[in-house]
Amino acid sequence: MNTNMEKPYVVGIDIGGTNTVFGIVDARGTIIASGAVKTQIYPTAEEYTDAVCKGLLTLIKANGGVDKVKGIGVGAPNGNYYNGTIEFAPNLPWRGVIPLAAMFEERLGIPTALTNDANAAGIGEMTYGAARGMKDFIMITLGTGVGSGIVVNGQMVYGHDGFAGELGHTIIRRGGRLCGCGRKGCLETYCSATGVTRTAREILTARTEPSLLRDIPAESITSKDVYDAAVKGDKLAKDVFDFTGEILGEALADFIAFSSPEAIILFGGLAHAGDFIFKPVQKALEENILPIYKGKTKLLFSEMKDSDAAVLGASALAWELKDLK
Amino acid sequence: MNTNMEKPYVVGIDIGGTNTVFGIVDARGTIIASGAVKTQIYPTAEEYTDAVCKGLLTLIKANGGVDKVKGIGVGAPNGNYYNGTIEFAPNLPWRGVIPLAAMFEERLGIPTALTNDANAAGIGEMTYGAARGMKDFIMITLGTGVGSGIVVNGQMVYGHDGFAGELGHTIIRRGGRLCGCGRKGCLETYCSATGVTRTAREILTARTEPSLLRDIPAESITSKDVYDAAVKGDKLAKDVFDFTGEILGEALADFIAFSSPEAIILFGGLAHAGDFIFKPVQKALEENILPIYKGKTKLLFSEMKDSDAAVLGASALAWELKDLK
Repeated sequence: MNTNMEKPYVVGIDIGGTNTVFGIVDARGTIIASGAVKTQIYPTAEEYTDAVCKGLLTLIKANGGVDKVKGIGVGAPNGNYYNGTIEFAPNLPWRGVIPLAAMFEERLGIPTALTNDANAAGIGEMTYGAARGMKDFIMITLGTGVGSGIVVNGQMVYGHDGFAGELGHTIIRRGGRLCGCGRKGCLETYCSATGVTRTAREILTARTEPSLLRDIPAESITSKDVYDAAVKGDKLAKDVFDFTGEILGEALADFIAFSSPEAIILFGGLAHAGDFIFKPVQKALEENILPIYKGKTKLLFSEMKDSDAAVLGASALAWELKDLK
Repeated sequence: MNTNMEKPYVVGIDIGGTNTVFGIVDARGTIIASGAVKTQIYPTAEEYTDAVCKGLLTLIKANGGVDKVKGIGVGAPNGNYYNGTIEFAPNLPWRGVIPLAAMFEERLGIPTALTNDANAAGIGEMTYGAARGMKDFIMITLGTGVGSGIVVNGQMVYGHDGFAGELGHTIIRRGGRLCGCGRKGCLETYCSATGVTRTAREILTARTEPSLLRDIPAESITSKDVYDAAVKGDKLAKDVFDFTGEILGEALADFIAFSSPEAIILFGGLAHAGDFIFKPVQKALEENILPIYKGKTKLLFSEMKDSDAAVLGASALAWELKDLK
């Protein structure tokens, strides 16, 4: 993609609810240097941008300086591709509309593009991962929240305002769990990492059987703890994944009725639970899908490393950027 | 669109669960002649095709003959654009996969394209109606069933298999009303014309208050009866529309999270109920939409006459067809 040998690198930044990962990427899609900061510890977007820029500049200086970087691509929750802004992201500490692309441009003097973090992951998957060669697929990111990147006719779906593809905030249980977005029953409240821990706590309270999870204080149980317990054969932990997977499969069946994708690709922390999550998702998907779609859409795990997909995807945006005036 | 003055006409055919309407359309989008048959009375697709072709040939002969017709476009439930087939349509009397485009081609010697009836209506709306100039919109057809045509980046969404956009079969009440597709709780079971009559019967049974609808035998109540009663101020009939609109609004809020369209356009019989349906839909939409989408998506009624939109939309497909070998 890069024809400008004076500026052989792009930067990809993946802003997650918990961590921000950034990397310098060369024209072959190799991450030649990377770093990270904790997203949640910065009370203002300015302090956050400062911290990311400091980390980035250290990497950039070690690799030939700012003049070698063609552009920066950012993947962020509620990222608006058209405006370069993060707008009302429920899982980030900063409220309102944050002109993050402009803030990076001002601080670093490097042109910057921004999109939804899940869209960035989707672009990464399409370029380097399981969606290579696909024209219609849906990327579902299962992290702190649940995100999605939808590709139709080979193009990312941004919608008329740049915010399309918030499938984590479709309602899967009307009147169900309260979501960070202020509504009830969003997919994200069940199928994110935090949703898994909520489910674990609910089942631990509702039932009396022994479980390895009872050795952990309820408020500090993580989805990783649930996975570890399931690996050790813990029935209750497996039931947590069955419940999570069933709800996700029901949701995916409805998503297929929208864009009839060739594949749905599961990405992020929860996707690492392997068969514990894959089998109940596949089962619920088959049981809930409209007959005309049956057996047509592949359910796949991402082929990218979690951080790489988002960083590479975000960085891919940057090759197309023009120099700043 | 038509550069071939030897063949100045196209034919559009709209296959509905109840009626099939067809028309000859000129290059300016005027329906110069039209006809109709009842869809349900033909037990086989062959008898049905015969009846439509007889009706069509009468019109075609009166307008210069088969040589004047460039192509036929068909809008049909469960229509597959890629294969020219109708596949497992729950609201049509013929089972399995029907190669309808090929059947018309064989019978009439005119090249034929076929798509989902709601997609055809969407193409009509984009070309002649409320979606002129829009690149992202969703058409919701409220007829015997509930259909949808989704346009993203100015292109109809067909999906990898040609069947994208079955939003009437997304689950809005899990475990709810039994649907013709064999599943439970589909949007179509609540927000189609038949859904309205089911709701009317349910409320008439559940409540004891007087209603104009009690003058009609329960099994023969139509959505038109409910509308007529509402116009006369019948409280129970208005409640039927409130219930229907609330469910539709909830569903639309989730659809917006998918493609973030500039507009959602309501089309078909139920859309004629005006404010009785529009107001509760709008209210539920605003109450259920994710904050980042609030106030951005227009809710519109179709600007096309019901039959015209589908016939014109279907016919628009035909201008691009190549002559048969």
